[in-house]
Amino acid sequence: MAGKYPVSPLAPKDGFPALPPIAGVRFSTVAAGVRYAGRTDVMLAELAPGTVMAGTFTRSRTRSAPVLDCEAKIGGGSDEGAAILVNSGNSNAFTGIRGVEAVRAVTAKVSDALGIPEGRVFTSSTGVIGEPLPHDRITAVIAALRDTLTETGIADAARAIMTTDTFPKGSVRTFEVNGKIVTIAGIAKGSGMIAPDMGTMLVYIFTDAMTDRAHLQSLVSRSTDRTFNCITVDSDTSTSDTLLCAATGASGVDVREDDAFAQALEEVMDDLAKQVVKDGEGATKFVTVNVLGAASDADARRVAMAIANSPLVKTAIAGQDPNWGRVVMAVGKSGAEADRDRLSIRFGDILVAENGMVADGYREADAAAHMKGENVTVSVDLGLGQGTSTVFTCDLTAQYIAINADYRS
Amino acid sequence: MAGKYPVSPLAPKDGFPALPPIAGVRFSTVAAGVRYAGRTDVMLAELAPGTVMAGTFTRSRTRSAPVLDCEAKIGGGSDEGAAILVNSGNSNAFTGIRGVEAVRAVTAKVSDALGIPEGRVFTSSTGVIGEPLPHDRITAVIAALRDTLTETGIADAARAIMTTDTFPKGSVRTFEVNGKIVTIAGIAKGSGMIAPDMGTMLVYIFTDAMTDRAHLQSLVSRSTDRTFNCITVDSDTSTSDTLLCAATGASGVDVREDDAFAQALEEVMDDLAKQVVKDGEGATKFVTVNVLGAASDADARRVAMAIANSPLVKTAIAGQDPNWGRVVMAVGKSGAEADRDRLSIRFGDILVAENGMVADGYREADAAAHMKGENVTVSVDLGLGQGTSTVFTCDLTAQYIAINADYRS
Repeated sequence: MAGKYPVSPLAPKDGFPALPPIAGVRFSTVAAGVRYAGRTDVMLAELAPGTVMAGTFTRSRTRSAPVLDCEAKIGGGSDEGAAILVNSGNSNAFTGIRGVEAVRAVTAKVSDALGIPEGRVFTSSTGVIGEPLPHDRITAVIAALRDTLTETGIADAARAIMTTDTFPKGSVRTFEVNGKIVTIAGIAKGSGMIAPDMGTMLVYIFTDAMTDRAHLQSLVSRSTDRTFNCITVDSDTSTSDTLLCAATGASGVDVREDDAFAQALEEVMDDLAKQVVKDGEGATKFVTVNVLGAASDADARRVAMAIANSPLVKTAIAGQDPNWGRVVMAVGKSGAEADRDRLSIRFGDILVAENGMVADGYREADAAAHMKGENVTVSVDLGLGQGTSTVFTCDLTAQYIAINADYRS
Repeated sequence: MAGKYPVSPLAPKDGFPALPPIAGVRFSTVAAGVRYAGRTDVMLAELAPGTVMAGTFTRSRTRSAPVLDCEAKIGGGSDEGAAILVNSGNSNAFTGIRGVEAVRAVTAKVSDALGIPEGRVFTSSTGVIGEPLPHDRITAVIAALRDTLTETGIADAARAIMTTDTFPKGSVRTFEVNGKIVTIAGIAKGSGMIAPDMGTMLVYIFTDAMTDRAHLQSLVSRSTDRTFNCITVDSDTSTSDTLLCAATGASGVDVREDDAFAQALEEVMDDLAKQVVKDGEGATKFVTVNVLGAASDADARRVAMAIANSPLVKTAIAGQDPNWGRVVMAVGKSGAEADRDRLSIRFGDILVAENGMVADGYREADAAAHMKGENVTVSVDLGLGQGTSTVFTCDLTAQYIAINADYRS
């Protein structure tokens, strides 16, 4: 639970960024007592009429009721206002028909309170799986949420959606078009059960850019593949991962032909994705895994994920041990095409191994020095082709075990 | 290193079994100082002329030099004697041409000392990957190994091959055919980097049964799939996994038409495989994962392995937490066909969830009581078809991290 564990040593040194208001978006939060005591646990975002929505979702076969509801709605029309309601503490996943009913109860109440169609109310739930969502505790606070909506509430929203997170995650980018400023601001939560196959956790991005659904969805999908689908904390894919992006259009700047928008959006997503890794449960190192020279990009990704998810590689990094033998092991088990005698491996800039054996002149002290830093880079050149992939992960420490062996108790 | 960590609480209560001599097999061990100080680290098994050999090996793409050498030799003729030499402390994996030369130096010396063809000398190396094997330390002790061979040395052999193991692993079965006794005895090592795709660790099985290579290989391959390929400690596949089975024929009992032999052999392999899991690094629980009702056996295995390898499931079990939501998550991420609303889940005999939600009358106290035991069973019925799979694993504890974050230091 938030606050129980010390803040990750990888948290942004400057704290939560100053996120400016996004015209057309208002936020409110409340302590509804869904599961946690003494903290906010529900956030509401109200989106002005005309807001365009896009989203990406977990590919788990056991997706939660809120995810299924969002997926059904995300392609819908956009002439009216919309809303996003998120609770922490209970994921409303694997709750059968009761889960569906809980979503319906909450979305109906929000629809009623804000005067928008139910088909434009999106919800997410994050927390324990398999326990019925006490949705009456949420419906009881909708009126209070409506009455306290404010344009400056995004930082509070970032805090209300935290579960085992040790810091709230936010990011912002702005750019100028013909003297008008366009802003993109996002918040995210997530620190465990993080693995690709979509969005990996909860992410909400808001912009005053003017666009259409198809354009926004295509950018969001493409950038999800390049950001959130390139991170892994523990290889476990959540049943609830959701990314929603809302464009209010209030800036009056049409960004459909604007590369600056695509780039700024991806920067926000990249920043949030890396913050999620940096809050990986128990993490003490931010790890970049680069694979090149693979027979294909798909093979490169397979190898990068095998390395990033290997408990033995991750514990070696936790121990600041340049144990490249474990990297070889992970390459071997990945299933990708590999030739032991063409492999080369680097830790940071240090060439550790090449041509299937330890490199001439390699001194373990050099690699060990790199491993002591907060940012560790593992690079593997398979020496076979042009395929490349980069993924981001963290180390595996005793703190991960401590957090997850007593999450519910 | 052996002795550094406390003996696994799951170790056999009766200690190492009494393994009888196998006619035609002699063992010796020595402290060669390959890496460890103050303990034996090389074992030699001498096999009488006429011994039939079979084996299974890791499927890693980065197989070690000794594994490649064994694979090349295993199909060879059997009229002459044979030998198995194993060192611990260094795996001679990812050592390039130097690794090949090291194997050649050792096998030549053994061949010379025992008067058997080099093509009948099998070696294994286990320990750190990527460091050149100081093979001169091994060749220097071959004469001493030859001079101390004894029929009663198998228990010492089991100890010499240990790395992070906390207890030596042995198993024996005997059966009678027309008044003659046939014996099968095996030893194994392994406690980390254990995942299927073959043999998962080092296993040596000796029998005085009389058979031929094709028969023995077919039994060994089939039983490997049912035993060692059904266990996982940490999903990491070793570069060195090797199983060798030697049948001396000294009992005079032809077992080629004998189901009792096939069964006894599989029992020995099953026993050793489970002992490896019970010595899983940091393990405090022995976990059986049963999956049934899958669309196919392959899908069932995919789900079982996803559950058995999930860090979140394994840490929940370490925490004695019947967190069935994490089981749902693992089913969802496995990639196998699944329908959330047909799933049912049991911990032990306790029905926890069915039809996609918590079961009527489920009391968490009941499941929690099951989780407190040393043996935890997780059963999932997908409700789709006839596919089944059972795999064995252990929990994931802080001790696993401690062992692997400082393995080399």
